[in-house]
Amino acid sequence: MTDTKTHDVIMIGAGPTSLAAAVYTAREDIDTLILEKGIIGGLAAITDKVDNYPGFPEGIEGMELAENLRKQAERFGAVIELDEVQSIKKNGNVFEVKTAIGEYSAKTILIGTGSEWKKLGIPGEQEFYGKGVHNCATCDGAFYRDKRLVVVGSGNSSAQEALFLTKFASHIDILIRGSEWKASDVLVHEIEKNDKITVHFNTTTDEIIGGEENGLPKITKVVGTKDGKKTDFETDGVFVFIGLKPVTYFLEGTGVEFDEFGFIKTNQKLMTAVPGLFCAGDVRSGATMQIASAVGEGASAALAIREYLEGR
Amino acid sequence: MTDTKTHDVIMIGAGPTSLAAAVYTAREDIDTLILEKGIIGGLAAITDKVDNYPGFPEGIEGMELAENLRKQAERFGAVIELDEVQSIKKNGNVFEVKTAIGEYSAKTILIGTGSEWKKLGIPGEQEFYGKGVHNCATCDGAFYRDKRLVVVGSGNSSAQEALFLTKFASHIDILIRGSEWKASDVLVHEIEKNDKITVHFNTTTDEIIGGEENGLPKITKVVGTKDGKKTDFETDGVFVFIGLKPVTYFLEGTGVEFDEFGFIKTNQKLMTAVPGLFCAGDVRSGATMQIASAVGEGASAALAIREYLEGR
Repeated sequence: MTDTKTHDVIMIGAGPTSLAAAVYTAREDIDTLILEKGIIGGLAAITDKVDNYPGFPEGIEGMELAENLRKQAERFGAVIELDEVQSIKKNGNVFEVKTAIGEYSAKTILIGTGSEWKKLGIPGEQEFYGKGVHNCATCDGAFYRDKRLVVVGSGNSSAQEALFLTKFASHIDILIRGSEWKASDVLVHEIEKNDKITVHFNTTTDEIIGGEENGLPKITKVVGTKDGKKTDFETDGVFVFIGLKPVTYFLEGTGVEFDEFGFIKTNQKLMTAVPGLFCAGDVRSGATMQIASAVGEGASAALAIREYLEGR
Repeated sequence: MTDTKTHDVIMIGAGPTSLAAAVYTAREDIDTLILEKGIIGGLAAITDKVDNYPGFPEGIEGMELAENLRKQAERFGAVIELDEVQSIKKNGNVFEVKTAIGEYSAKTILIGTGSEWKKLGIPGEQEFYGKGVHNCATCDGAFYRDKRLVVVGSGNSSAQEALFLTKFASHIDILIRGSEWKASDVLVHEIEKNDKITVHFNTTTDEIIGGEENGLPKITKVVGTKDGKKTDFETDGVFVFIGLKPVTYFLEGTGVEFDEFGFIKTNQKLMTAVPGLFCAGDVRSGATMQIASAVGEGASAALAIREYLEGR
């Protein structure tokens, strides 16, 4: 749809960052529109169980937390539209936002699109996503105490997270497509010293196989090709770290600055190089990729947006 | 008590910052001790209702949120001791923490003591604290839609928060002890233009008077002395902004750096000028004084502490 109203703020992406920010802005009568192209709640919504979002002693289902955040933002008057932002242009003091099906305008913008883990694109990956296939050791590692794991990837994230997962897992197979690590020497040295980890070079990850256990999805093995031969890796879970992609494709030509990995640079007030264009959460340079941090930054960004709107 | 064990991390202050950080560290088997001199949950625990902590669509009682945070941290193995930290000394790579009743040691420290609003020290203030007497317009302003308010203080906080409260309140009396504002000209000008606000100079705030309404505490008026004469200000609530005091008295001689207001300076990883000594939440320079932000910073600090402990 297209509306002719100039909103106080348009937030792009309805993940925890924007929903938390919207709780603050909407509650303070700042006219707030959120545009989301996919799933309300973002990566949080597709996480099986969130154990470490502070405030829920026994943890909370990702979907339930996402629903709570949505309800809270909407309770104060935030509006969420399902629509895909294609471009942003600043015209004087107003941002013009072009979407798949219309146009919107606003005095300020909050980019809360987060980032996406790159996918392997293999059978079983989608089926077990969040239920055996994970992208965050800090979030989901503790579910694998004394279990076997497969980790995929050759970079710093893969090495770091694999080392972290040895706190929980009984054994970890790391599958690396090429013939060597791209991670730092220090990390590789630690991996080599760790007798819980076996590294498999020249190994592709071809298929994730599983079924059900006690009525829940359960992975049993990963099928790979090692040195040209089909090989089975028995496992209870798979952690995939083949790169993160911040969601920023709609920012071309805006003047926003990026770090060397493509994440958005902000100042201490969470404002980008473009006045009135704010950014928080997993798309921001320096993000910790934690729901609690995204929510905290959303709240802080909301206060900064209020100050900006008040001309302070 | 005194223990001889060197903890991985000692967190000072059991408010939302440390409790959130402890959820992360304890869950990752980082040995975590929290030392608290007063109330577990900090300022959050003494807030009547927390409407804007993301995750609770209908809001949550401050005490309940504090309890949830405590339970979650303890569930993962964090230990909380009621004891008052008196000093910290770094000896080689170990921090020695002296308390009112003993000594502790740790490889890292997280300062999460927050800050305290200065009190008026008048009758009724303690009785109605969190139930009519407040220190945060963003937190509690929305409870006063179409109600009368009194705001006390002459600085930027007082002016800013009073202006913000006009979004909700029908009328605001600002009580200022001296004969002029200490706030910025821009803010004072906005106050002067706002017909919901009446400013009373040369006015002391002497007593807060109230009773009960529907079984709940309810303020009815503030008694002041204006130009030497006793004066009543009818009101539904009182917001006091006579200065914030970061809780840092135990840091003398540590080498920690402070900003001009006495808040602790950190780098992007939330580490102070002293390696291994971290700081997050309301005691940190640049803090937004929001529970969500404190919790988010607590989580981020926990990840930084983990990196530090791993020697990265």
